[in-house]
Amino acid sequence: MRDVSVIGIGQTKVGEHWTTSLRHLAWEAIHAALADAGTEAVEAVYVGNMLAGALSRQQHLGALIVDFAGLRGVEAVTVEAADASGGAALRQAVLAVRSGAAEVVLVVGVEKVTDMVGASGTTAQVAAADADHEAVHGVTSAALGALLMRRYMHENGVELADMAGFSVNAHANAVGNPYAMFRRPLKASSFVKGSMVADPVNLFDSAPAGDGAAAVVLCPTEMAKDMVPSPVRVAASSLVTDAPALHDRADPLVLAAANTAAGRAYHAAGVVPGDIDLLELHDSFTVFAALQLEAAGFAQRGEGWTLAKNGDIGPQGRIPISTCGGLKARGDVGGGTGVYQAVEVVQQLRGAAGDCQVPNARRGMTLNVGGSGGTAVVHILESIE
Amino acid sequence: MRDVSVIGIGQTKVGEHWTTSLRHLAWEAIHAALADAGTEAVEAVYVGNMLAGALSRQQHLGALIVDFAGLRGVEAVTVEAADASGGAALRQAVLAVRSGAAEVVLVVGVEKVTDMVGASGTTAQVAAADADHEAVHGVTSAALGALLMRRYMHENGVELADMAGFSVNAHANAVGNPYAMFRRPLKASSFVKGSMVADPVNLFDSAPAGDGAAAVVLCPTEMAKDMVPSPVRVAASSLVTDAPALHDRADPLVLAAANTAAGRAYHAAGVVPGDIDLLELHDSFTVFAALQLEAAGFAQRGEGWTLAKNGDIGPQGRIPISTCGGLKARGDVGGGTGVYQAVEVVQQLRGAAGDCQVPNARRGMTLNVGGSGGTAVVHILESIE
Repeated sequence: MRDVSVIGIGQTKVGEHWTTSLRHLAWEAIHAALADAGTEAVEAVYVGNMLAGALSRQQHLGALIVDFAGLRGVEAVTVEAADASGGAALRQAVLAVRSGAAEVVLVVGVEKVTDMVGASGTTAQVAAADADHEAVHGVTSAALGALLMRRYMHENGVELADMAGFSVNAHANAVGNPYAMFRRPLKASSFVKGSMVADPVNLFDSAPAGDGAAAVVLCPTEMAKDMVPSPVRVAASSLVTDAPALHDRADPLVLAAANTAAGRAYHAAGVVPGDIDLLELHDSFTVFAALQLEAAGFAQRGEGWTLAKNGDIGPQGRIPISTCGGLKARGDVGGGTGVYQAVEVVQQLRGAAGDCQVPNARRGMTLNVGGSGGTAVVHILESIE
Repeated sequence: MRDVSVIGIGQTKVGEHWTTSLRHLAWEAIHAALADAGTEAVEAVYVGNMLAGALSRQQHLGALIVDFAGLRGVEAVTVEAADASGGAALRQAVLAVRSGAAEVVLVVGVEKVTDMVGASGTTAQVAAADADHEAVHGVTSAALGALLMRRYMHENGVELADMAGFSVNAHANAVGNPYAMFRRPLKASSFVKGSMVADPVNLFDSAPAGDGAAAVVLCPTEMAKDMVPSPVRVAASSLVTDAPALHDRADPLVLAAANTAAGRAYHAAGVVPGDIDLLELHDSFTVFAALQLEAAGFAQRGEGWTLAKNGDIGPQGRIPISTCGGLKARGDVGGGTGVYQAVEVVQQLRGAAGDCQVPNARRGMTLNVGGSGGTAVVHILESIE
């Protein structure tokens, strides 16, 4: 089993790209990543995408995107695991290199949610939930987030204002990220005044959907050392599932898939949570940030919210999260999210995160979650000393 | 790189399963495949599916299906490459075992096209084509097939009746397959009288869409020998893309992706076309069968149709195709097709194909094509002596 490293990254600004097509967004990220890697000798491409079939009536993105990117003929498929599609695609790319099937492999996560011709965004997104037992009743992704948030507040005696720190941190970090959708800071006093989306989840509690694409180039670590000055090693990769429907879980406030995926990744990398310098988690709603900190071993059950309250999640804190804005402020790129997370961690480990830089970042983790926890993908990335 | 073998297969009957849900179809195939393999110790599941997002408003099938199949928590993702999704999922499963990430891996190809709640079947299917440059003009999958068929007839001086042999062979073979959608023979004289679908493609020239699921269990060959009496070795696996849009190709009558994928597979397996005992190809329209025989080296350019005319594709012929009915008579299971093809080849190599049996089959090939040739996936499977 070969060791794998990242040799190139690329991304587009997240936002409303009304005049840019899905394939063009993907090309922009691919072009940047290949330039960064200094090679175009890609043998396989994995596309992370969830919504193109429903919103753009376009599937078959593998063939479509490599053709448009000037890589016609290259092996390419889409990997889908709802909002965790990007992380799942990254994992398949890692396995492709490990297996010996290819040397240089590219992952691109892309989503186009504006200018849609098919279903509504709400209808498309809730396909991550259980269609027969959740969505059929009219529930939306925000409503599922609200159910979890209400229960979390009830069990742990938490007020909405106690969650403000997650969004405040994300927005503060996004100010320094030129690729972020919203680069304005958010005050805690404004957080509680957001328009209600699905009680108790309000506007400032919810990540905005945005168009965008991010790409990562991988190759065997031995090769990487000769190709780029600062390769970043994939120390661990894991993907675990759980029941997609909230009501099917033994305890909806425990993200079992995230817990197991993180545990496997720590074991594979030979580290403990305290060894992680930054964590890009899946903060589609603030309650998910709290639950993921708990599932990944950074807080006890019911105490994830305290890390947002006491500053532990800030760039100088114990476990910096959403260091480039997270889903909340960089923007929620649906099935592309997991690849953005990897790009951001690589930037940090290279010391190239600019105004978002976490001091002395040597080891970062991504936690990409599909639906309300049905899939969790974890990658641990490390600087090569 | 570890050698990989098939240790279990399962499938549902293809047809209109109005009262059976997508996840239930998948479970039925998974259950049969695991019973056949004699193990439930599955570590990863790859789902081949194209249409669930559009037709059932259900994505995130990995988590959903493993949960319903009693495998909650197991790693699972969907792999999508239009109609080649099943073959693409099989390839990812092969890579997962080769990489050492898992020992026992399951692939399930599933599609549910009846009782749909989302887009129409026609709208969903044409998402395999180029949405911005083909589908936007109102073209359908059948219309793209018709464009190719018209050109093929024109260039090669072929009449509609000359193509009859493909459908006649498929229907004759399906009579012996209890899982086939249509088990009635078709006469050549009836073929030319089919209702027109998209001139010159008629009803008997077109494969019928059906619900169904098929599953395959893989593990390292060394382990397989201890687990089952007749493991079937994956001698080669390849996936190649081409421009999804017909008008983007240098020559629309050359399926370049299928040609390259087959060539790579022959090279990897150390064989030539003459060593292949049977070929499950992607006969969604008869012209595709002809073009694929040419692309895979069984006929010269423009001469694929002659194999259907002279009996070369029959069970006793030079290169038997659609041995269990193919897409034309077993039914076109969309993104599940590639897994059905693998199940059928394994049956043949085990000598367990019943009334469909090809005499002395030792080596079989699958050719799973997405869209009108944008993706081609080839697997060569061999009996272990």
